[in-house]
Amino acid sequence: MRVLVIGGDGYCGWATALHLSNRGYEVAILDNLVRRYWDSKLGVDTLTPIAPIQKRLQRWHDLTGKKIDLFVGDITDYDFLLKSMEQFQPETIVHFGEQRSAPYSMIDREHAVFTQVNNVVGTLNILYAMKEHFPDAHLVKLGTMGEYGTPNIDIEEGYITIEHNGRKDTLPYPKQPGSFYHLSKVHDSHNIHFACKIWGLRATDLNQGVVYGVLTEETGMDEMLINRLDYDGVFGTALNRFCIQAAIGHPLTVYGKGGQTRGFLDIRDTVRCMELAIANPAEPGQFRVFNQFTELFSVGDLAMKVKQAAVTLGLDHVQIENLDNPRVELEEHYFNAKNTKLLDLGLQPHYLSDSLLDSLLAFAISYKHRVDKQQILPKVSWRRG
Amino acid sequence: MRVLVIGGDGYCGWATALHLSNRGYEVAILDNLVRRYWDSKLGVDTLTPIAPIQKRLQRWHDLTGKKIDLFVGDITDYDFLLKSMEQFQPETIVHFGEQRSAPYSMIDREHAVFTQVNNVVGTLNILYAMKEHFPDAHLVKLGTMGEYGTPNIDIEEGYITIEHNGRKDTLPYPKQPGSFYHLSKVHDSHNIHFACKIWGLRATDLNQGVVYGVLTEETGMDEMLINRLDYDGVFGTALNRFCIQAAIGHPLTVYGKGGQTRGFLDIRDTVRCMELAIANPAEPGQFRVFNQFTELFSVGDLAMKVKQAAVTLGLDHVQIENLDNPRVELEEHYFNAKNTKLLDLGLQPHYLSDSLLDSLLAFAISYKHRVDKQQILPKVSWRRG
Repeated sequence: MRVLVIGGDGYCGWATALHLSNRGYEVAILDNLVRRYWDSKLGVDTLTPIAPIQKRLQRWHDLTGKKIDLFVGDITDYDFLLKSMEQFQPETIVHFGEQRSAPYSMIDREHAVFTQVNNVVGTLNILYAMKEHFPDAHLVKLGTMGEYGTPNIDIEEGYITIEHNGRKDTLPYPKQPGSFYHLSKVHDSHNIHFACKIWGLRATDLNQGVVYGVLTEETGMDEMLINRLDYDGVFGTALNRFCIQAAIGHPLTVYGKGGQTRGFLDIRDTVRCMELAIANPAEPGQFRVFNQFTELFSVGDLAMKVKQAAVTLGLDHVQIENLDNPRVELEEHYFNAKNTKLLDLGLQPHYLSDSLLDSLLAFAISYKHRVDKQQILPKVSWRRG
Repeated sequence: MRVLVIGGDGYCGWATALHLSNRGYEVAILDNLVRRYWDSKLGVDTLTPIAPIQKRLQRWHDLTGKKIDLFVGDITDYDFLLKSMEQFQPETIVHFGEQRSAPYSMIDREHAVFTQVNNVVGTLNILYAMKEHFPDAHLVKLGTMGEYGTPNIDIEEGYITIEHNGRKDTLPYPKQPGSFYHLSKVHDSHNIHFACKIWGLRATDLNQGVVYGVLTEETGMDEMLINRLDYDGVFGTALNRFCIQAAIGHPLTVYGKGGQTRGFLDIRDTVRCMELAIANPAEPGQFRVFNQFTELFSVGDLAMKVKQAAVTLGLDHVQIENLDNPRVELEEHYFNAKNTKLLDLGLQPHYLSDSLLDSLLAFAISYKHRVDKQQILPKVSWRRG
């Protein structure tokens, strides 16, 4: 089966492209490589020295004999997108190709507008390309658990059955996203749902939690295949960032009280979830939503776990620092999200373990000379003035 | 109180601007006048001969002594928007300035992308201008009842209290919009809600039904003040279109079975609803949603009412034609939407009456020589291929 991985040069995209290639799928990567450029513009860098995509793909071919096609360009350029799709003839389109950082979207008006236009137009272009030329293809779209916010009731997978004034209906789950980035994903979800309804397209929206870890079976084969690992205030996410902070003796930066509870998953489960969604496609006209995470943790609890693992490894003096929260979010709240659909398809989770934390800490230590300590603290505020 | 009416050259915007001016508000209109250009590009025209905005405003001044300022430009141009706002110093910002036709948004990919980018970016720009320079201003934003779709439960005003697995929360009402235009309004609603939450802005989202009628107290004062009245397949809406069809002896075009039920209101109530929302602003941080319609009708019932009124006026041979539905929508469904919030603020509805239908039909007859019969039937399909 031919799978086009849009955004295949990024953190989840790269790991997914290699995993699918390794599992026998015919894979192409489409990417505008702009994520590397944003790093340059912000003056940040991944902890790990990632090779140019062309070299990554050459090494993959040398190591495994498997070829991954490459299309360098932007999906907001419809002609480019269509030409690439017509050349590759994808049966599944995996879409990671969006601006994915909440702080980036909150920098200022220009970044908010860019994030929403880039993400919404890219996805609309994919939907139109599918409608016009690939109506039977399956869209596997990366959403986010952040679409739901923190409601005071259980979070279901995409839809909720509501009884109201003696009547009943199953409706899209109400959305309360917490940044202009998360809002862009909500906009996408509504647009994709509509396209499935009117054009009979098939799509799976994977509302993913916070991903941690860096090694997968494939990216660990060779240093030239190494994945990116972000720790900076704009692109770094909770657990990965904590491990790198511990490795360099920087306080673990918990925003506010730390009672923010979120869904988390190991990147080895990300790639497996993608594979399960691809192998078990949605029906024509179906807009299917899976919540893609394996465990719930509060941010404060995660910091504690990292601190304990660091102490065991002999990293003394690891402090936890509760910063003024740059975001506007509840810091203590009910949170119970469902995640049975991917388990039902056969996902066998890699739960967070001491050994994972040990290996991630050791990995961080081995690259700690690359850390720029000026880039760790959050600089983007959600608040007015 | 100073009120900036963005989109004040359009159907609802023009009537609202004059009404507010007449009621003693200090009014400015900001409009890019692009709606007139789209008519030219599509080869369609309003039934009524509308004067250039500058002449309209001059006549208004001559008749009433009241001055309405004019800013001609585009709100997707942030510098222009900000400069206009800094000059006028609005206390209320009424936002009608969006692409408002569902069929227009469904013409093709370019029109879908344009509609969403234009509407979402314009609203984001207003929100940022408010955040940066007018944090106490009140945004009164035109939404649409079409955000809700046709759920099988009662439609509340913006929010719904859900009991689920023994817990309870009040959440944004789930959205099931039926075109890329309606989706753009859903995107706006989510963005505005978030801006109110993080920046403490105040906003009222008016989820308006289908507006009918053409005369208000102010637009009826002089033919130079006449409002636009659209009957074409792209911009024409149900009841207005039926009256014009009856006037020229064209069959009344009901899409599909005609069981589609929607909220409707007289344009005289539109302007009064705007005034009520402005006079009773939302609280800081509040994202308030009103459903703005006065009655529910099925499209088929409306066609019957117009036919009966036409026969009474001596217009014989009025036929009702059920066309193949160009849209993808339920043609028979439950529909019960609440609309008490504007009534609670004092709205006294102009319910649809024989006399309104008579006057609208008479009005249509007096301009029927301007009708281009080639523009009446729907040409835009929601369907694939």
